[in-house]
Amino acid sequence: MKKYCAGIDIGGTNSVIGLVDGQGNCVCDRTISTKDFETPEAFVKAACIEIRHCLEQNKDAQLSGIGIGAPNGNYYTGCIEFAPNLPWKGVIKLAELFRQETGTTSVLTNDANAAAVGEQLFGAAKGMKNFVVITLGTGLGSGFVINGEVLYGHDGFAGELGHVIVVRDGRLCGCGRRGCLETYASATGIVRTMHEWLDNSAQPSPLRNLEEITSRQIAEQGTAGDPIALEVVDYTAKILGRALADMVCITSPQAIFLFGGLAQAGDLLIKPVKKYMEENLLNIFKNKIEIYSSKLSSNAAVLGAGALAWKHT
Amino acid sequence: MKKYCAGIDIGGTNSVIGLVDGQGNCVCDRTISTKDFETPEAFVKAACIEIRHCLEQNKDAQLSGIGIGAPNGNYYTGCIEFAPNLPWKGVIKLAELFRQETGTTSVLTNDANAAAVGEQLFGAAKGMKNFVVITLGTGLGSGFVINGEVLYGHDGFAGELGHVIVVRDGRLCGCGRRGCLETYASATGIVRTMHEWLDNSAQPSPLRNLEEITSRQIAEQGTAGDPIALEVVDYTAKILGRALADMVCITSPQAIFLFGGLAQAGDLLIKPVKKYMEENLLNIFKNKIEIYSSKLSSNAAVLGAGALAWKHT
Repeated sequence: MKKYCAGIDIGGTNSVIGLVDGQGNCVCDRTISTKDFETPEAFVKAACIEIRHCLEQNKDAQLSGIGIGAPNGNYYTGCIEFAPNLPWKGVIKLAELFRQETGTTSVLTNDANAAAVGEQLFGAAKGMKNFVVITLGTGLGSGFVINGEVLYGHDGFAGELGHVIVVRDGRLCGCGRRGCLETYASATGIVRTMHEWLDNSAQPSPLRNLEEITSRQIAEQGTAGDPIALEVVDYTAKILGRALADMVCITSPQAIFLFGGLAQAGDLLIKPVKKYMEENLLNIFKNKIEIYSSKLSSNAAVLGAGALAWKHT
Repeated sequence: MKKYCAGIDIGGTNSVIGLVDGQGNCVCDRTISTKDFETPEAFVKAACIEIRHCLEQNKDAQLSGIGIGAPNGNYYTGCIEFAPNLPWKGVIKLAELFRQETGTTSVLTNDANAAAVGEQLFGAAKGMKNFVVITLGTGLGSGFVINGEVLYGHDGFAGELGHVIVVRDGRLCGCGRRGCLETYASATGIVRTMHEWLDNSAQPSPLRNLEEITSRQIAEQGTAGDPIALEVVDYTAKILGRALADMVCITSPQAIFLFGGLAQAGDLLIKPVKKYMEENLLNIFKNKIEIYSSKLSSNAAVLGAGALAWKHT
């Protein structure tokens, strides 16, 4: 028998389900539409059917546990609590539902914490006791590992770096407040900045010809040397670098890993982020902290969720 | 035999030495002038003589360990590292020197971390797994307890909340940068604010007649209803409350304890700090986190240092 943990990455549109072995190899990769399921119970049944399909495809496969990464996932309670972008409202006892359906250990946390566990067990943070993973997607998520353990805090919701306020009375955030870090430093945030820049200047840019601007296109044009794209990346990096410098003051990590779509920009983003972070660091922290882009594979979210289950079996 | 741990609180001017029993009672309280000792070796010898005096005064007393709270004290290395306000320069192996002199377990950390351990073992944080202690003195120190353990981070220097930048290009800080939280929210910071307020208004205030304004006098005049004092307290509370809201986003504590001179202002300060923190909190954290002023006795710094030793014996 070969042991696997299932990793489930729940998103507002789609959810991806896979199997993760003890070496961090992700086998099988199936997608279901989150929005198709009116109740969490129906979703759990469908997800478990996919898990069984995956197990059948791998000879002698045995399920050791289920790890779930979900927006507003609370590790302590195993519940998704009031997630604005999911079809199920209120408090959803998701880990318990998976446990009932499969009889297997089921662990839930938010996607950024799952990414941190993935990096710790199977990625470049192997052996590190204190590090931070920052996911730059639609929003900005963060998972802190302190003394080898994920930081959950008193209520399970620690690690909301995306909602640190970086510009007083700044951009309106999905949380209802203004000036949160994620309204500037995320895939969505950098696109907002680009629209502001284009509206306030007459400088030509290939980005003006696009029907819809994405963070990937900004990164591509930046790499190609487009001046506005470079300015926008620099502005985003400055806001993120300063916020990281403040975060380091509190948690003193060994390294910071950037993860998700915008992190794919690599050095284009990381170099200025590192420069602005160093410029703003308290002396005792200078030249100590590395910033990496995560090297985990494209199904890293599934891997992270699977890693979470491995950590608990 | 009755067991005691020695607690040593090292300050730039004076150091206080006492004995702490297992119930958190502080017996004996002796002060030596830090500045009188040109070398750390001479200081350690003098401090150990005081410890022995204390032990002799208490029948059947036995020394179980030594805890030291010191500026720039690094728990991991047991060293004081480049403390700007101490007479000894560079890296001082203080825990090792105490160990050699007494043959006893000796543990070192910074004063805010020691205060957090004191609060955890003998104060109002007993039984709490996640909380923060903030010391409002000459600067702003902070000690974070996460999952029951003090947060030291990768290099031992985590918890420098006083150096989070709250006003971009703001007041010059002792660390060489500008706009650090402690330049506004500390005993020194509130006095700086008061001088600015008095310089920029003609409003009468009893504080104008003083040769030197202290944070205690600002608190006294605020309690007595002086409008400028109340404005200055409100401004300080707003900056501190906002910074706490951002810190909560990262660490999600159960409670925050304010400690040190300025915290003695009690409700005068805590009420508006709590108000501004709540106004700025992300929804999921609202109405969950208590702010208390520490109830530890006047020799709380010695008690904290002693508690640190108790935690390790």
